[in-house]
Amino acid sequence: MNGVFEVWAPAATAVDVVIGDVRHSMDAAGGGWWTAEVVGAGHGTDYRFSVDGGDPMPDPRSRWQPEGIFGPSRVYDHDRFAWNDDLWRGRSLPGSVIYELHVGAFTPAGTFDAAAGRLDHLVELGVDFVELMPVPPVPGTRNWGYDGVDLWAVTDDYGGPDGLKRFVDACHLRGLGVILDVVYNHLGPSGNFLAPFGPYFHDSAASFWGQAVNLDGPGSDEVRRYFIENALQWLRDYHVDGLRLDAVHALHDRRAVHFLEELSAEVDALSAAVGRPLTLIAESDLNDPRLMTPREAGGYGLAAAWNDDVHHALHVAVTGERHGYYDDFAGALPKVLTCAYLHDGTFSSFRGRSHGRPARHVPGHRFVCAAQNHDQIGNRAEGDRMPAEALRLAAGLLLTSPFTPMLFMGEEWGASTPFLFFTDHVEPHLREGEADRRRREFVGFGYDDWAERAPDPGEETTFLRSKLDWSELDRDAHRAHLDWYRALIALRKAHPELSDPRLDRVRVDHGDGWLVVHRGPCQVAANLGQVALTVRLAPGQVLLASDPKVTAEGEELFLPPRSLAIVKAG
Amino acid sequence: MNGVFEVWAPAATAVDVVIGDVRHSMDAAGGGWWTAEVVGAGHGTDYRFSVDGGDPMPDPRSRWQPEGIFGPSRVYDHDRFAWNDDLWRGRSLPGSVIYELHVGAFTPAGTFDAAAGRLDHLVELGVDFVELMPVPPVPGTRNWGYDGVDLWAVTDDYGGPDGLKRFVDACHLRGLGVILDVVYNHLGPSGNFLAPFGPYFHDSAASFWGQAVNLDGPGSDEVRRYFIENALQWLRDYHVDGLRLDAVHALHDRRAVHFLEELSAEVDALSAAVGRPLTLIAESDLNDPRLMTPREAGGYGLAAAWNDDVHHALHVAVTGERHGYYDDFAGALPKVLTCAYLHDGTFSSFRGRSHGRPARHVPGHRFVCAAQNHDQIGNRAEGDRMPAEALRLAAGLLLTSPFTPMLFMGEEWGASTPFLFFTDHVEPHLREGEADRRRREFVGFGYDDWAERAPDPGEETTFLRSKLDWSELDRDAHRAHLDWYRALIALRKAHPELSDPRLDRVRVDHGDGWLVVHRGPCQVAANLGQVALTVRLAPGQVLLASDPKVTAEGEELFLPPRSLAIVKAG
Repeated sequence: MNGVFEVWAPAATAVDVVIGDVRHSMDAAGGGWWTAEVVGAGHGTDYRFSVDGGDPMPDPRSRWQPEGIFGPSRVYDHDRFAWNDDLWRGRSLPGSVIYELHVGAFTPAGTFDAAAGRLDHLVELGVDFVELMPVPPVPGTRNWGYDGVDLWAVTDDYGGPDGLKRFVDACHLRGLGVILDVVYNHLGPSGNFLAPFGPYFHDSAASFWGQAVNLDGPGSDEVRRYFIENALQWLRDYHVDGLRLDAVHALHDRRAVHFLEELSAEVDALSAAVGRPLTLIAESDLNDPRLMTPREAGGYGLAAAWNDDVHHALHVAVTGERHGYYDDFAGALPKVLTCAYLHDGTFSSFRGRSHGRPARHVPGHRFVCAAQNHDQIGNRAEGDRMPAEALRLAAGLLLTSPFTPMLFMGEEWGASTPFLFFTDHVEPHLREGEADRRRREFVGFGYDDWAERAPDPGEETTFLRSKLDWSELDRDAHRAHLDWYRALIALRKAHPELSDPRLDRVRVDHGDGWLVVHRGPCQVAANLGQVALTVRLAPGQVLLASDPKVTAEGEELFLPPRSLAIVKAG
Repeated sequence: MNGVFEVWAPAATAVDVVIGDVRHSMDAAGGGWWTAEVVGAGHGTDYRFSVDGGDPMPDPRSRWQPEGIFGPSRVYDHDRFAWNDDLWRGRSLPGSVIYELHVGAFTPAGTFDAAAGRLDHLVELGVDFVELMPVPPVPGTRNWGYDGVDLWAVTDDYGGPDGLKRFVDACHLRGLGVILDVVYNHLGPSGNFLAPFGPYFHDSAASFWGQAVNLDGPGSDEVRRYFIENALQWLRDYHVDGLRLDAVHALHDRRAVHFLEELSAEVDALSAAVGRPLTLIAESDLNDPRLMTPREAGGYGLAAAWNDDVHHALHVAVTGERHGYYDDFAGALPKVLTCAYLHDGTFSSFRGRSHGRPARHVPGHRFVCAAQNHDQIGNRAEGDRMPAEALRLAAGLLLTSPFTPMLFMGEEWGASTPFLFFTDHVEPHLREGEADRRRREFVGFGYDDWAERAPDPGEETTFLRSKLDWSELDRDAHRAHLDWYRALIALRKAHPELSDPRLDRVRVDHGDGWLVVHRGPCQVAANLGQVALTVRLAPGQVLLASDPKVTAEGEELFLPPRSLAIVKAG
């Protein structure tokens, strides 16, 4: 058995692959690449690279880091895994519902295999895609995943590369697609050994999380390949169905062909090669429809983007909260339900400038919208979820909307567990500074009072408290909450007008504390206030109501306080 | 049980639904629609409509014509069928191979059920979609399908509505998608009862096959709905995965929103509702990329269009034929393999004018290309297929191309049976005139000599001779031919570069009688001539060769006469 090792180190004069105590010198192979064939190496061999005689470091494209981010890389052969999903033909995003989860906090064991044991719950719920928060190795043993550094590897804390494959395989056998959250705009602050290998980072540009990735400076052709081939690895070798691209607004790229456009063209070519739809979803706060405009029309050709305006409008409407960036969103529901963005060129108080661009022509399924997600829960001081009663109203509006709905784990049963921001930094300066950094973030967002209430991200209990408590499903109140979610998803699938993506067909009547959303013959009527009221709509059949006291008589629909009903005309 | 009958007859002053000998008068329901509820009617009830007291006629939206195009309509309830394809999530076109078949000629019995009995053959072949030539009722018992009139029904000669559903269900259980050929540009010349109901046809515009459908004149809003809802019926109620839209160049529509754009928007909305990819493919001779340009970019948003230029270039290259419309296509392979169209603004001798528009920016999977299809075989005087030896070369080039390949039934084993033009008109003037009409067509296309050789379309033997002879699969030569096709499809699926849709990445070296098509590291080398030769290419591994005498040595590849090989560099 001979193992071939390859690494890009364009400025190096010598590179060694270090196996055990033996250094094998590598040959320059053109384009800044180095290569070596080592007798006896192969799947399972531990190795490191040394540039110009320096300390051995993990492979920038390490597929396996069994001892974590400071340990050696281990050779991993993708072809050894025995897949069972031959019949899987993929899943297209339009019409789908996404379920976001954190592998470590989803189950008590916190592994891929344990998560796979809960898939029947998701099938019964009726969702179509599972979206995993990032899975690469991170500092310590608990992290949201956005501090990942070995971007080609899968943390062994969750089950390593084979564990992720078993999870994807199990999803496919149940008809569920898998979306993976990937972070291409920064690397974590600890265990990042890329810089000695090549110009992976920008000299002049920085993001909120540190040095920006070099997508348009000298040497960036290969840096772009590093990320693009990373994307292709997940989609091809892990059979993943889509990627959620973290914070694309933090990508610095002024090239004529933007990194995201290049990426989407490559992924579309792979989609043709593997014969499955492959879905790219951006997290973006730019409110810029260019992201999901087809490349032929001058856009980047992504399938969808997260839309926080819809979240904020829902959140404010059902909770009444107005602090910080929620300030502009009072009464915003009619606008976002018909135009997708509140800020589509309008002034954003939080940003102190006008923001966004009209997007009403964009199909609704290109907006991934949530009443709850890891950020909107976890970035609150106490990681507290929306009250269950408010959540049921928000879910009623979200799951009848023209957008692609996304749920956050536990939301469907009104989980009472928080989802806190947690880390486990091993380097003392990071461990000690994390709580302070977190507080500064809250102050920066204008949430001074939260800064004092936030628990220390580094405490193990902060992580343990964030794990779902599945025993809650034994309680009636949580079962009833789950039934409401199941019924809403089933209703969405049974009535095509509810997932009709054409925003210009949505009409909203509204008044003080109430609104009626017209989706073809379906009418979604909500009383968000504390006083019962009667709304007028086209007479028909009540398909579903959040409260048994909802009654329809002719054109009049009686809605108790804090209730929602879907009525089909005719 | 009460049956509700509905029909659009905007100029009528009275409409009856006629059941047995009883006329039930219908009520005007607004918008030109008439409705009646009849006690005791339901699934299985035979009925006709009478406009202003005239002769009873079939329902324009008849779902079932058990006694053919002159018989009564029969109520058909879509909800009664028990589907088994719950796990089917659809199939996306990119990366797929299509297999076109005529239900009547595919098997000796000529039914959906008999066709379903041959699906294992298609699975083993490796194709992804079955494309059915049109299935609505036609005059007589044998017809290509383009003389259909009851466009919402399925001919009982194939098995009726339930038969089609059983076939689709069986395909889905084997992982095959189904594309249905639908004809919206004209109705057949016999049994067309639409005109008395409403302005279905254009006063002033005509197509090659008769009166043009009214898509932009007065009353055309409802006529467009007639066709759009027809499309939705197949995709929704029959679980079909895509439609092949016959001859869209014969649609007359000058509205700001073209019928095809409206159709694709509706189908995309349905795709979101059913959570499956739904594929629209146009047959078009316009060479106009607007058809498959996204709507956001000003196009019609179809998934793909047939591309005859690729067929003609292949046909001329492997057969040497030059007559009629093949005249421009000598040496056209390098151009069509890199630009999709030969005529992308260039002069077309056959049309006597310049033709088409550049399309190199369009992804290759948006072009459905064939070495053989029903038209290119069947519209030859004697319905003769390409010689098997030429076909193997054409298949080698087609199945390694950036386009969506389509095969025609029997092609994969080099079937020796012809596919002739056949009809079975019941009206004497049509029956007697058909052979003459056919001859005039050949003369019109410049094939005067063919006019004499074409058999009478109305003779039953013309149909019977066109049926596949499956016993040919017992013979070694046909098995070897089939093995070549299977190997090519398997190769296409195993090497992503072969289905890479980016035309600007295709490079072709060529000379007298040979060409080498570069698809990333894969090189497709073909010797189309009668003399052995050696071509130069990047050294590598011969993945597949049509002839055991092909040999590679370094940069030299030896190709015997009429041979093709795929070599992977590196």
